[in-house]
Amino acid sequence: MDDNLVERAFTLGDIPGILWTPESSSAAGQLPLILLGHPGGLGPMYPRLVARARATAELGYAAATLELPSNGDRPRSAVIEQARAALQQTLRAGRRPTEEVIDSFILPLVDQAVPEWQATLDALLGVPELGGPVGYSGGVIAIGTRLAVVDPRIAAAGLFAGSFIPRSAIDEARRVTIPLHVLLQWDDEGNDRARALELFDAFGSKGKTLQANMGGHTGVPPFAGEDAARFFARHLGGSR
Amino acid sequence: MDDNLVERAFTLGDIPGILWTPESSSAAGQLPLILLGHPGGLGPMYPRLVARARATAELGYAAATLELPSNGDRPRSAVIEQARAALQQTLRAGRRPTEEVIDSFILPLVDQAVPEWQATLDALLGVPELGGPVGYSGGVIAIGTRLAVVDPRIAAAGLFAGSFIPRSAIDEARRVTIPLHVLLQWDDEGNDRARALELFDAFGSKGKTLQANMGGHTGVPPFAGEDAARFFARHLGGSR
Repeated sequence: MDDNLVERAFTLGDIPGILWTPESSSAAGQLPLILLGHPGGLGPMYPRLVARARATAELGYAAATLELPSNGDRPRSAVIEQARAALQQTLRAGRRPTEEVIDSFILPLVDQAVPEWQATLDALLGVPELGGPVGYSGGVIAIGTRLAVVDPRIAAAGLFAGSFIPRSAIDEARRVTIPLHVLLQWDDEGNDRARALELFDAFGSKGKTLQANMGGHTGVPPFAGEDAARFFARHLGGSR
Repeated sequence: MDDNLVERAFTLGDIPGILWTPESSSAAGQLPLILLGHPGGLGPMYPRLVARARATAELGYAAATLELPSNGDRPRSAVIEQARAALQQTLRAGRRPTEEVIDSFILPLVDQAVPEWQATLDALLGVPELGGPVGYSGGVIAIGTRLAVVDPRIAAAGLFAGSFIPRSAIDEARRVTIPLHVLLQWDDEGNDRARALELFDAFGSKGKTLQANMGGHTGVPPFAGEDAARFFARHLGGSR
C-alpha cells in the first residue's frame, strides 16, 4: 500500500467495494468524497483505481468504488450477460451496434448499478471521517449521467465519454444541472464520437467543459488527470 | 504598468506592436516567447492583451503582439474593408455567411498578416533577452493555422476557435504537426461549431487537445486561461 493512503475493503450486502482515505487527514473528519466509476471488474481495474484514489487523496479527499452488477466476483445476471454476448458478437463482426443492442446491455447495468451506488453513498456518509460534498468520476457514462440526475448529493461529475451511450441517456442529460468535466478520447476508434458530442451538448449544466485528447481509448494523457483533479478542487472545495 | 511586466512599444515598418517581458528575468536572456493573436485593434484589445501578457510573464516568458492589417491605426485595405462590409451585412440580416463571404474577408487577412508576424519574429528573436522556443496564442484561428504550417519556429499553439474558418484552412490544418491546445466556446451562437470541430479533427498533430466551455463568445472561464498556460509550460519549457 501507499504511505499516504488508507485502503479499506467493504461490502454492501454482498457487493464488494473499496474506500480510500488520505492517511494524514484521518482525524480531520468531514472529507469530501469522490465515487470512482469504472467499466466493471475491480480486480483488473485495481491498479488504475488505486492511482486515481491516490490523486484524489492528494486533493485531501476520500475515494470509493463498488463492483458493477454481473462483473468481477458478483453473480452473473442472465439479462446482462446475454446482452454483453450480443454486443461482443456485433463488435467482432466489425459492425456498429444497433440502438437495441446498446440499450439491452447498458440500460440493465444503469438500472441496477445506480441504486447500488446510492446505497453505498448512504453507508459511506455515515462513516465519521466522510462528510462530502460528493463527486462522481469516470466509468460508464450512462451510469454517471443517471446518478447526476437522481441523486442531489452528487455535486460535480467528471465523466469519460468512452462507453456506449443509449439514446435515452441524451434525454436524461438535459436534466443534469451540476458542473461537469467530460473527457473524450478524440481518436478512440471504438467510440461513437458524434453520439458523445450530442450527449455533451444535451447536458443541462450551465458549467460544463469538454476536454478531447488524442491517444486512443486507453491513452488519456497525464495532464488530463491533473485537469480533472483541478475541476474537482474547484467544485468540491475541501480540506487542502 | 505592472511591477512584474516591462512593456515596450515597437514598430515593424509602420505596423505597431508591443513586446512584454517579465521584469525579474530581464537579465536571464533566452526567454521563450508567445505571440499573442487577437481579432484586430490593439487599442480596444489592450486590456485583454496585457492580462494575457501578465499570465505569460508568470510563466517566465516574453509576449508580443502586432496590429492586424486594416485594423487599429493602420491604413485601410479596400479589399479587406469591402469584404468586412459584406460579412457584416450578412450577419445583420441574420444569415449565415457563405463560403465566398468568409473567404473574401479572412483569406486576405491571413495572406497579409502571416508574413508580418514572421517578420516580427525575425526582429524579436534578435532582441538579446529573447531566445525561444516560440508559441502562438489566440486570435484569428486561420492566421494561427497558417503560421503553424509555414513557420517551423512556432513550437506550440493555443488556438481559439471563435472566428470564421475558411474551407481552405481545413486542408492547411492537415499539415500542422505541432502540439495544439484549441479552445472552443460551446455556446458561442455566432460561431459555426461544426466547422470548428471539423478543423480540430483535421489538424495533423499527434498531440492536440480541444477544450470546450460554456459562457458565450467572450465568456471564456478563468480556469481555461490557466489550462492554456499549463499547455505552454509543458511545451515551451523555460526559465521558471
